[in-house]
Amino acid sequence: MTQVMDPATRTSNHPEVPGEQLTDLGAALRHALDGQWAERRAQARATFPSANLLRDPDLSYPEARDWVLVRLRELVDAGFGAAGVPRNADDTADPAAAVIAFELLAHGDLSTLIKSGVQFGLFGGAVANLGTRWHHDTFLPTITSAELLGCYAMTELGHGSDVAGLETTITYIPETDEYEVHSQTPDATKAYIGNAARDGSMAVVFGQLLVHGKNQGVHAVLVPIRDENGADLPGVSTSDHGGKGGLQGIDNGRLTFARVRVPRQMLLNRYGGVDDTGRYASSIDNANRRFFTMLGTLVRGRVCIAAGGGIAARRGLSIATRYALKRHQFTAPDRPGGVLLLDYLTHQRRLIPAIARAYAIGFAQNELTEALAHIQGGGEHTEREQRQLETRAAGLKAMATRFANDTLQECREACGGAGFMAENRLVGLRADADVFATFEGDNTVLLQLVAKALLTDYKQVWGDMDRAGMVQATARMVGDTVLERTAANLLIDRLVGAAKRRPEELTLVDRGWHAYLFEERERHSLESLARRMRGANGRDFEAVNRLGAHMLFVARAHLERVTLEAFIAGIEACEGPDARRVLERLCSLFALDSISTDAAWFLEHNRISTGRAKAVDAQIDALCGELRPQALEVVEGLGIPEGWLGAAFLAD
Amino acid sequence: MTQVMDPATRTSNHPEVPGEQLTDLGAALRHALDGQWAERRAQARATFPSANLLRDPDLSYPEARDWVLVRLRELVDAGFGAAGVPRNADDTADPAAAVIAFELLAHGDLSTLIKSGVQFGLFGGAVANLGTRWHHDTFLPTITSAELLGCYAMTELGHGSDVAGLETTITYIPETDEYEVHSQTPDATKAYIGNAARDGSMAVVFGQLLVHGKNQGVHAVLVPIRDENGADLPGVSTSDHGGKGGLQGIDNGRLTFARVRVPRQMLLNRYGGVDDTGRYASSIDNANRRFFTMLGTLVRGRVCIAAGGGIAARRGLSIATRYALKRHQFTAPDRPGGVLLLDYLTHQRRLIPAIARAYAIGFAQNELTEALAHIQGGGEHTEREQRQLETRAAGLKAMATRFANDTLQECREACGGAGFMAENRLVGLRADADVFATFEGDNTVLLQLVAKALLTDYKQVWGDMDRAGMVQATARMVGDTVLERTAANLLIDRLVGAAKRRPEELTLVDRGWHAYLFEERERHSLESLARRMRGANGRDFEAVNRLGAHMLFVARAHLERVTLEAFIAGIEACEGPDARRVLERLCSLFALDSISTDAAWFLEHNRISTGRAKAVDAQIDALCGELRPQALEVVEGLGIPEGWLGAAFLAD
Repeated sequence: MTQVMDPATRTSNHPEVPGEQLTDLGAALRHALDGQWAERRAQARATFPSANLLRDPDLSYPEARDWVLVRLRELVDAGFGAAGVPRNADDTADPAAAVIAFELLAHGDLSTLIKSGVQFGLFGGAVANLGTRWHHDTFLPTITSAELLGCYAMTELGHGSDVAGLETTITYIPETDEYEVHSQTPDATKAYIGNAARDGSMAVVFGQLLVHGKNQGVHAVLVPIRDENGADLPGVSTSDHGGKGGLQGIDNGRLTFARVRVPRQMLLNRYGGVDDTGRYASSIDNANRRFFTMLGTLVRGRVCIAAGGGIAARRGLSIATRYALKRHQFTAPDRPGGVLLLDYLTHQRRLIPAIARAYAIGFAQNELTEALAHIQGGGEHTEREQRQLETRAAGLKAMATRFANDTLQECREACGGAGFMAENRLVGLRADADVFATFEGDNTVLLQLVAKALLTDYKQVWGDMDRAGMVQATARMVGDTVLERTAANLLIDRLVGAAKRRPEELTLVDRGWHAYLFEERERHSLESLARRMRGANGRDFEAVNRLGAHMLFVARAHLERVTLEAFIAGIEACEGPDARRVLERLCSLFALDSISTDAAWFLEHNRISTGRAKAVDAQIDALCGELRPQALEVVEGLGIPEGWLGAAFLAD
Repeated sequence: MTQVMDPATRTSNHPEVPGEQLTDLGAALRHALDGQWAERRAQARATFPSANLLRDPDLSYPEARDWVLVRLRELVDAGFGAAGVPRNADDTADPAAAVIAFELLAHGDLSTLIKSGVQFGLFGGAVANLGTRWHHDTFLPTITSAELLGCYAMTELGHGSDVAGLETTITYIPETDEYEVHSQTPDATKAYIGNAARDGSMAVVFGQLLVHGKNQGVHAVLVPIRDENGADLPGVSTSDHGGKGGLQGIDNGRLTFARVRVPRQMLLNRYGGVDDTGRYASSIDNANRRFFTMLGTLVRGRVCIAAGGGIAARRGLSIATRYALKRHQFTAPDRPGGVLLLDYLTHQRRLIPAIARAYAIGFAQNELTEALAHIQGGGEHTEREQRQLETRAAGLKAMATRFANDTLQECREACGGAGFMAENRLVGLRADADVFATFEGDNTVLLQLVAKALLTDYKQVWGDMDRAGMVQATARMVGDTVLERTAANLLIDRLVGAAKRRPEELTLVDRGWHAYLFEERERHSLESLARRMRGANGRDFEAVNRLGAHMLFVARAHLERVTLEAFIAGIEACEGPDARRVLERLCSLFALDSISTDAAWFLEHNRISTGRAKAVDAQIDALCGELRPQALEVVEGLGIPEGWLGAAFLAD
């Protein structure tokens, strides 16, 4: 703000965060990483109420819950709560606005973020996406104003990932034209539900819809759970999960229902319900397809959690890197004044490849948010696009949250004992982000979903070809349907085409070589998985079970490739030469780090020579050294204003 | 206890944990893993006061501190507090008893464990090891009874790993025959010190000893810090670090000293101090050697933390595995009743290789404890043995605590949302064990110490030989000095000798092949590090800095080899055929998992073929499947009584 920005890389009307000092290069990198959302993100950052951003880490969990509720209402007042959620039946959803607001909230207390996500994204989102006009008009105004606080009661004690197996029942009672909601077994207890322990007065309850003795599959119904004094309504039992590993400001609890009746109109019936004639009716005949369509509308939650994980990791990297730029550890014979932590190669290896990956994931997130905005923004789209969005969202959620957990722990350790003090914020971030790996879909299960979706695509392309036919077809199809391009298609095709002819003659930072290796990893592992899957009898648990690790590998290979391509597209869109030069290095570092992680695979499959594999490691060291002088600017580019980090040891 | 034990694998007088049910195989595995300490550990387990083992996770940190102090005194009364610490000048230390007591405490609240470690291990240990008769007689009785609570004030805000660079000064004042303790700069503030915020009334303060203007290097002095009402004494300022990432029951704080005077006799002067003539005197002339001798006496802390990390990981694995043996996730076409979590190969891969590693680390810990008992138990030992103990302790501490952090996180995630609830204990364990990676030596720095020690050994053997000479000498020396055998020497020599001739013809579970690969990894990487180090100018920071990642690799390779050999020795000592069969599988799993992690290295250095590298992964899957039916027994063998786990979801 006090700096003059490079006109080549900054738009003239770019608003700034009040009080933030930023280098030109840092600003240009931030603009590039913000990508297609640069204007909206800059605007959101500049107006975000940052005065009360972080919670006192010493609050007890009841105090933390009070604080979070106050903060949530502040954010609602500032327009950052229900952003993007329609306010009534005539309002339209703005999914990108919702994701961008969620990202901003992820710059502050993560309990507040998730409280907001529960209220607006899950509870509000279910009403908006699964309900119809009456629900929208009746409930969205008070949901979006946070007057009516609610729960998203899907998970059961006995059924986490297996939503189709829920045991709660929603039984139609023709005599009174009501639904009866009932927890059939202890396993049917709704568990880990946000807003259930204290604040929620209504819940969207998922369960098996039984109509005239027939199970129509999982549906969702609105059930009031507390009266205005906070007491459980008749038939409803709420209880408190108490302390957790993090997110102490959220009142997670359990819900059980003992034959609780609600009027028929309380069922969220966009995709099916009992009609005025007392019969079940749905616009989707196939029960399986109906189930996945209903779940599919909830994809925004995963897009948001992926974004939140990415931001949490960026906060950790910003704190740890800024600390490593001021902290000395030992002296050296030729550095009697001491060596900065970040001057140690071992320390660079802890932080700089992770920063590169944070950029990569950021570019992938930009594309995912764009896909969400396209599919849920009211425009035309195909079922195939919808399915691809779901696959990408599942995959990026798993990838970004795994990255967040690993990175925040690395950042904590990289700051030594100081990193363990709550006042330096890393342990709180780490604790709060932990469960991102589990909620909105367990990461392992999500990666399996990704692999299954890729196999489905693969089968549609190759059908029942024999092996020779498959190999030939693959040669023709690479870069097409199965390896769907995310962006910058022509560029990447050209890069790969040039690289595949003489891969070993290229430099280690040749982008075409990277793209070629990423593509080979995905293609080959997917092909071999498809062959093994064909050999396994799909009904034989053990035969399919043995492919578990292979499936996870394929999913990761796919996500790495999609992410690299997003990074390449992001660099293409960057106009400033200085920022572009740094992004090229970060992209090479991301690519080589990924290749190094899977070096054994590339060697085993003769995709690189042993000499080249050794050289990759040395090149990673070299790139860390090249990026070291711009470490501050690179961290500024991650987009977290220094004043928002709140780490005591940076304030000295 | 209600089971009849197999007489071949159980000693007749083996005491049992009250109320514990144990399978025969579980008991035999536990006996084998307890190793040379089986009798003492069983005795300790059977008498350990387990009634008040775990803390209510919802206590605020001031409440937690109160609880911990009460619990500490209970443990002292039961003989588990200052176990092994001499009670006065005429008592002898029993280092093995200290480590075994520390292990038992690690079965309970980890704040209590570390509070005990601070009081008895660090504070008491410094007085015992660095003090002389007057200190012992004056202070040890009330230290060991926990009447005099104290601090171990080594770390400074500006100096964590760099102990030689401490800025606190201890200046001799001839006029009054006193020492003056002073915090010269803000960086000299003692930080993260246990017992400093609230409970400590005395501190062992480390600082530069200045006598007549000459700096004699780091020494330690006893300084009273609080009066009987808990108020800071004149010149002393204490403050509270407040909340932390874990260990909330410990009152970590800061200490600063403004020219605080203490009588001359308060200096812990076993290795040096001002004598009655007013001059500095030391039994060790070389200041550097004196410094390392003083620090070397404190090795027990690292041995204990390694043990504590190992136990924490075993607790997590016990909880997660027992949960995976009762929890269903999805159904499968041929398993309509549902599939147990542990039946999924992906879930087995999360837990079973980690269990194998827990056994491996346990056997390595047994040997380390034995070495400590030998060196510090009052017997004869060489300086070389002392140095080797320090290297092993540093290395195993880094290895076991890294393992604990990674494993506890994996266990948390493997239990899904339930794993995130405090009542199921995983998040608390995870949070408390986190800082084990940092205190008693930052893990990265410790691994560098290991590599440096190996290089020193290497130099002593090879001297200034040229490269050809080195290679020849290496061929003769393998299995000798540099690759010092830990146990079962002849057996391992024979195994390796047989394996190296035709490594690729052996089965994947051939122990000789494993030992050969582990040895090759260490030998080759150490040799190449030595060559690179010789090429680098030791005074050129950048030249040495570039070797950082290589040093870490060498240290890990060394530790893996030592650990494998300890495992082999442990199997050799196991007499029951059933337990032995299981241990063989666990050992193969540990070895192959390690080989798989470094598969790229083995491929790059032509130690395995690409086909064999692929087969390693399949063999890991197969071993997980073979161990799956004995999962419960294997977990029982880890030695944590089920009733002590305290996880709510296991009680259902």
